Amino acid sequence: MEFIIPRGTQDILPGESERWQYIEEIVRGICHTHQYKEMRTPIFEHTELFSRGVGESTDIVQKEMYTFADKKNRSLTLRPEGTAPAVRSFVENKLFANPIQPTKLYYIGPMFRYERPQNGRYRQFYQFGIEAIGSSDPAIDAEVMALAMSVYRKAGLKNLKLVINSLGDKTSRHAHREALINHFEGRIGEFCGDCQKRLKQNPLRILDCKQDRDHELLKSAPSILDYLNDESKAYFAKVQQYLTNIGISFEIDPNLVRGLDYYNHTAFEIMSNAKGFGAITTLAGGGRYDGLTEEFGGPKAPGIGFAMSIERLLAALDAEDVKIAADQGIDCYIVTLGEQAKDYSVSLLHKLREAGISAEIDYEQKKMKGQFKSADRMHAKYIAILGEDELNQQKIKLKDAKTGEQQEILLDELIAFIKENS
Amino acid sequence: MEFIIPRGTQDILPGESERWQYIEEIVRGICHTHQYKEMRTPIFEHTELFSRGVGESTDIVQKEMYTFADKKNRSLTLRPEGTAPAVRSFVENKLFANPIQPTKLYYIGPMFRYERPQNGRYRQFYQFGIEAIGSSDPAIDAEVMALAMSVYRKAGLKNLKLVINSLGDKTSRHAHREALINHFEGRIGEFCGDCQKRLKQNPLRILDCKQDRDHELLKSAPSILDYLNDESKAYFAKVQQYLTNIGISFEIDPNLVRGLDYYNHTAFEIMSNAKGFGAITTLAGGGRYDGLTEEFGGPKAPGIGFAMSIERLLAALDAEDVKIAADQGIDCYIVTLGEQAKDYSVSLLHKLREAGISAEIDYEQKKMKGQFKSADRMHAKYIAILGEDELNQQKIKLKDAKTGEQQEILLDELIAFIKENS
Repeated sequence: MEFIIPRGTQDILPGESERWQYIEEIVRGICHTHQYKEMRTPIFEHTELFSRGVGESTDIVQKEMYTFADKKNRSLTLRPEGTAPAVRSFVENKLFANPIQPTKLYYIGPMFRYERPQNGRYRQFYQFGIEAIGSSDPAIDAEVMALAMSVYRKAGLKNLKLVINSLGDKTSRHAHREALINHFEGRIGEFCGDCQKRLKQNPLRILDCKQDRDHELLKSAPSILDYLNDESKAYFAKVQQYLTNIGISFEIDPNLVRGLDYYNHTAFEIMSNAKGFGAITTLAGGGRYDGLTEEFGGPKAPGIGFAMSIERLLAALDAEDVKIAADQGIDCYIVTLGEQAKDYSVSLLHKLREAGISAEIDYEQKKMKGQFKSADRMHAKYIAILGEDELNQQKIKLKDAKTGEQQEILLDELIAFIKENS
Repeated sequence: MEFIIPRGTQDILPGESERWQYIEEIVRGICHTHQYKEMRTPIFEHTELFSRGVGESTDIVQKEMYTFADKKNRSLTLRPEGTAPAVRSFVENKLFANPIQPTKLYYIGPMFRYERPQNGRYRQFYQFGIEAIGSSDPAIDAEVMALAMSVYRKAGLKNLKLVINSLGDKTSRHAHREALINHFEGRIGEFCGDCQKRLKQNPLRILDCKQDRDHELLKSAPSILDYLNDESKAYFAKVQQYLTNIGISFEIDPNLVRGLDYYNHTAFEIMSNAKGFGAITTLAGGGRYDGLTEEFGGPKAPGIGFAMSIERLLAALDAEDVKIAADQGIDCYIVTLGEQAKDYSVSLLHKLREAGISAEIDYEQKKMKGQFKSADRMHAKYIAILGEDELNQQKIKLKDAKTGEQQEILLDELIAFIKENS
């Protein structure tokens, strides 16, 4: 019987998995310097955690979730995103009680959405995200964006665009909302059915409707920036000042919005305009939120975070033709002649590895020629050759694959020699 | 509304997640020296992949799986173990066609079993496992066991016991099976209902029945080792010889069995007999299998692997009171006085981090005293103090937290100084 992988998912195989490890190392390193600590929440959560805010106004609608009942008929859902679990955990584990705030968290791992699989879109996909919960210092907003940019730059991307906006505080948003309703109301019949519903529910979402994006009323729509009150304006100005001081350039796009009520102040997206992509592609999105911890039964603790797709980051590296460390080859391949040498090589191999040297032998009873070919295929830096004669003298022939130079050294000195010379 | 974590799962929080990262680093390093490459398969698979062999004779029975239907009514299951997905991927992606065999794979990640949650047993748990598919060289058996032992030892465990057995080849197993049936048949009425069913289906499993483990017939049961044919005996002898040469001590336990038909030759378990554990605890189990790739529609490719529980490894470290690297503190905390200094510190912070220095500032508008306290709580190696005076002179005060020594240095020299001295 043949078994196949579930639709919309992928195996990350050797040769490719090294690229993922490389990105993860960058992520962990940058999170360390920025003092974001890893949090691992379960792969599934109670469905209500994700469905609480679900309705027309969210991106993740219920039909796109992997939801199932456990044996006790509790509804569970494979996590579609990382913010709700992080905030759930922050509240449930009382991380707000730590003496230093904000609590700076990161997560990296698989997320799940039941979407139509497309090129580069998977039903199981990987996200790296951070959340800084418990501070409304604009310096944190700048830090969050800087961290995302650092990851991309360190990975080797150059064609990056940071786009920011402010959604203001509640008062500002409310004033803007009224203005939007006034603006669209008279001609809402010209918009799609979704937008007609959005008008009263969440008119902000009309601004990023994919169907109506070319409607002339969008261009003339009132900008949130004109409705920011003084406090919101000052906050946004400070965020921009910090970004500028740090040396991160950005564009302001007043149409960059977030649908959910709890988003406020800073919203941002990072895009790639690499030529290798057909169009501009969003790599990461994030923003400031308020009220989530209270909604989850915790104390007030404003947060900000982002999520970035690892698949898209890797695609962007391809689009910019950035090669990253894949297989770097092994330090030493041991070629053996005869059973006695083979037997001995098993312990020698173990010793090399214990000393931190990546090493390999043949497990297919290949002749010497075949073993040399394997050494070559594995990009061995050194090829150690062991026959009965060498063994009797406790020596080994060592060939430098690059120079072709060959010498005989004492078996006892092999590890020290390789460590010194590689 | 309060949200809680699903029953039987856990959040791995900052402070604890560093221990997981540390174990993962060890795993990745040792897999590199041993040339096992990472494979990442999806979190869920088609249910048939896991249910094909399910019946009385497997450990993972269907009722212990998280199984659900997708919107097209295909049955999916959260993976309960890593071997079947690895072999599925090996066959589906034709890894058997690579010129060097065996294909040496590792995986590390969450697995799922719907069990009654108990102390240390979770419904979502983490496994690290390796599979070497495509060789029946006994040197691979030794390598697989050596790799597992290396991970435990490098993590710091000392109280380890490797127990091995041979299940022989098909012929040997058949002869042993007949002997077992003869041995138990007459008095099978004294055994539990499960064992009564096992007698004809899979009498080997009677040997590790938890209910009947003290029955006198178990002690006198025919040992598989007496039924090994010459080939199987020679294979087992070679595995033992390699282990001995490598310097890994082991015990032989003829009652260490594996229920499924495709297991053959080497079976092993690694246990901890640390005093901190109440009883001896199994940390990892593995063995050689044959016929799995064919069952999955691929060519013949005998394999061997193991799976180890990360939760149990961490519990064993606790039981042996081995402390592993958790929070190592930050390199530099910047204390600021006044708004101008705070503003400047945001860019300085960014520069430090870009240079690979872990650094932090205050985001809570704390007074200087509070900031010093935070620096202390974060175990900062250096505390940099910046006020208006210092800023005007482009200098900064730098305090060594350990010695208490304080000096003034040029702002431009801060990064170089910290890098040199930490």
